[in-house]
Amino acid sequence: MPYSYLKPLLDDNGSKIVLLVLDGLGGIATSPEGKSALEMANTPNLDRLAKEGTLGQTIPIRYGITPGSGPAHLALFGYEPLDYVIGRGALSASGVNLPVKVGDIAARGNLCTLDQDGNVRDRRAGRISQEDAAPVIEKLNQVQIPGAKVEVRQVKEYRFVIVMRGEGLAPSLNDTDPQEEGVPPLKVEAQKPEAKKSAELMQNWIAEAYKTLADQPIANGFLLRGFATDPGLPSYEDAYQLQAACIAEYPMYKGVSRLVGMDVLDLVGAGAEGEFKTAEKHWDEHDFFFIHIKKTDSYGEDGNLEAKSKVIEEVDKALPILLDLKPDVLMVTGDHSTPALLKSHSWHPVPFLIWAPETHRTDWETAFNEKNCARGGLGTFPAVETMSLALAHAKRLQKFGA
Amino acid sequence: MPYSYLKPLLDDNGSKIVLLVLDGLGGIATSPEGKSALEMANTPNLDRLAKEGTLGQTIPIRYGITPGSGPAHLALFGYEPLDYVIGRGALSASGVNLPVKVGDIAARGNLCTLDQDGNVRDRRAGRISQEDAAPVIEKLNQVQIPGAKVEVRQVKEYRFVIVMRGEGLAPSLNDTDPQEEGVPPLKVEAQKPEAKKSAELMQNWIAEAYKTLADQPIANGFLLRGFATDPGLPSYEDAYQLQAACIAEYPMYKGVSRLVGMDVLDLVGAGAEGEFKTAEKHWDEHDFFFIHIKKTDSYGEDGNLEAKSKVIEEVDKALPILLDLKPDVLMVTGDHSTPALLKSHSWHPVPFLIWAPETHRTDWETAFNEKNCARGGLGTFPAVETMSLALAHAKRLQKFGA
Repeated sequence: MPYSYLKPLLDDNGSKIVLLVLDGLGGIATSPEGKSALEMANTPNLDRLAKEGTLGQTIPIRYGITPGSGPAHLALFGYEPLDYVIGRGALSASGVNLPVKVGDIAARGNLCTLDQDGNVRDRRAGRISQEDAAPVIEKLNQVQIPGAKVEVRQVKEYRFVIVMRGEGLAPSLNDTDPQEEGVPPLKVEAQKPEAKKSAELMQNWIAEAYKTLADQPIANGFLLRGFATDPGLPSYEDAYQLQAACIAEYPMYKGVSRLVGMDVLDLVGAGAEGEFKTAEKHWDEHDFFFIHIKKTDSYGEDGNLEAKSKVIEEVDKALPILLDLKPDVLMVTGDHSTPALLKSHSWHPVPFLIWAPETHRTDWETAFNEKNCARGGLGTFPAVETMSLALAHAKRLQKFGA
Repeated sequence: MPYSYLKPLLDDNGSKIVLLVLDGLGGIATSPEGKSALEMANTPNLDRLAKEGTLGQTIPIRYGITPGSGPAHLALFGYEPLDYVIGRGALSASGVNLPVKVGDIAARGNLCTLDQDGNVRDRRAGRISQEDAAPVIEKLNQVQIPGAKVEVRQVKEYRFVIVMRGEGLAPSLNDTDPQEEGVPPLKVEAQKPEAKKSAELMQNWIAEAYKTLADQPIANGFLLRGFATDPGLPSYEDAYQLQAACIAEYPMYKGVSRLVGMDVLDLVGAGAEGEFKTAEKHWDEHDFFFIHIKKTDSYGEDGNLEAKSKVIEEVDKALPILLDLKPDVLMVTGDHSTPALLKSHSWHPVPFLIWAPETHRTDWETAFNEKNCARGGLGTFPAVETMSLALAHAKRLQKFGA
């Protein structure tokens, strides 16, 4: 549960909050002469907000811990990431809007190619195309067994998700993906006694499904991994009295948003501008908007400092669309750092900006970047405090105690 | 246990970490014109590291808490100091390399002088010399009783440690030192029911030992205090996959290092230079080096600002020896503050510097002292996070969650 002390203080006053997440926003320079992507970027709008509002920097999970995207977003949403763990299967299923409820089992799947001895020849079925994979995955979706209901949906190309529903299921099952070629897929086995029935049912389904694919020329098998169930996260409405919307391009972020009860909005266009115009279109229907920009992270992982910097500039340029909506609270941050220098996620603190013209405390910092944020008025704080700060600045929290 | 979330993320990549602790490093000035020892010191090497790396300041235990050396070092080593308490007896025994295992009882002892009525006349036996005390303490080492095995070892001059080993022992025993003269030593009594047997055995041993010393002219008695057992700390190898070495001049720091499984290295010379050359000699054998400089604390306790400042300058001057070894991560900090102005340990935050040329985030601070560190990019953080930051900057931690 997000902090239980918040709930009795909630006051749904209709104010509007925007959480703008530039994925992997934080960067590093390892010498005094160097610059991060955020420092390089020309960001007059963000700098104005920085000058007017309050800066800080967040610790996504704990000091020194490099987060994956799932736990990093849970923290931003106010869910203690060491307590709430979302399995990949559940996240992927939620990402393609395949409902996973508490007690269901979800897993990610790859189509693969088996040789005549039943050994894996290609773990990705020759990276079979979206079009060629679609009818094969639809065949899998038709396979049913007694005792459970199974649904399968394509994610992209050879990748799919499977959800099994039934009585007494438990997700403690091993992957069938052997992670190498020349050996057969692994059998599903129960990792805990309570998953015995699940293992049997899943193995039965796999056997049926393999028969169905036997005559396929390339995708004549599949591998499953990341068995998981819905982590049963309290919803944004229940925890915060917020009608929340998610505006994101990538399935994984839509997935984690659905798991906390956000409405995932259809985008009216691409990039920051498209996402901000999506917020504009649905402005009256929601009071919390989580807007996710992916490419800062992607270019960080590529080690492309300039491209990451350009994405930040695009966001800055489109920002007036958001500002014209007059949000009561606008927060700009990342879920974690992805320094282009490291080409990977990292543990470094993440720049954070809160701008709430009626309630923020203006500090003395005048630019939005790692250095100014580290000196900012909010100091260094855990990302899991983000929602408390949002609600407070939106005047949605009453006094604690008399 | 050090943070349990670290263990599944560990990746022993062979990188090398140095934790350089200047004991009691932090100081204070109580007016804007004043300077701490660290501010007075001319430290071009530390300032260069500060300019390139990241600064911060640590809270050793909790806000406002002045730590002893034991808990302060446990925190730096990643062991929550409120959960792990090392009794003085165990620490002293470990300091002179007298093994204390879980279930053994260790205590510190003083030789003392008793008058003919059996009252304490001098609690330190006239501060009897190293040479004169040695044979008396060796006599104590020979005293054995049924039901337990006892070992006694001289620490320095009139001070010794005793370790009792046997079945069903427990360390909840009171000191025999009455802390005043003109009264007899106290009897050992069990503070908890499970220590009843220990109290009896210890009292039996004391009675035998007193007989042995009866004809001594000065050191005809002794006082025991700080009964404790091994706290059962997880080792550095188990907690961090690090082969750790301790380089220290004083027994107490060797003691706490042994309790976490560090190898205590023989010094090749005195002072910072001797310690750094010790690291050089053993560089290939270990991947974590804890290097302890004592005299910053000693001069702080003496109120000798200039001498404390000079020690810091000596460390700075010798630093190139360490830097030439090309550690992947070098941290420079204190275990606590010992302001010369206060002539004692204090609760003030402690300057912290991390320098890891491949992974640090350069902040904007350019000198290593209390003021710059307080503004540094890491902010103010608990000392117990030191090891997480070390492992992260050494690229020894994998991503948390997907």
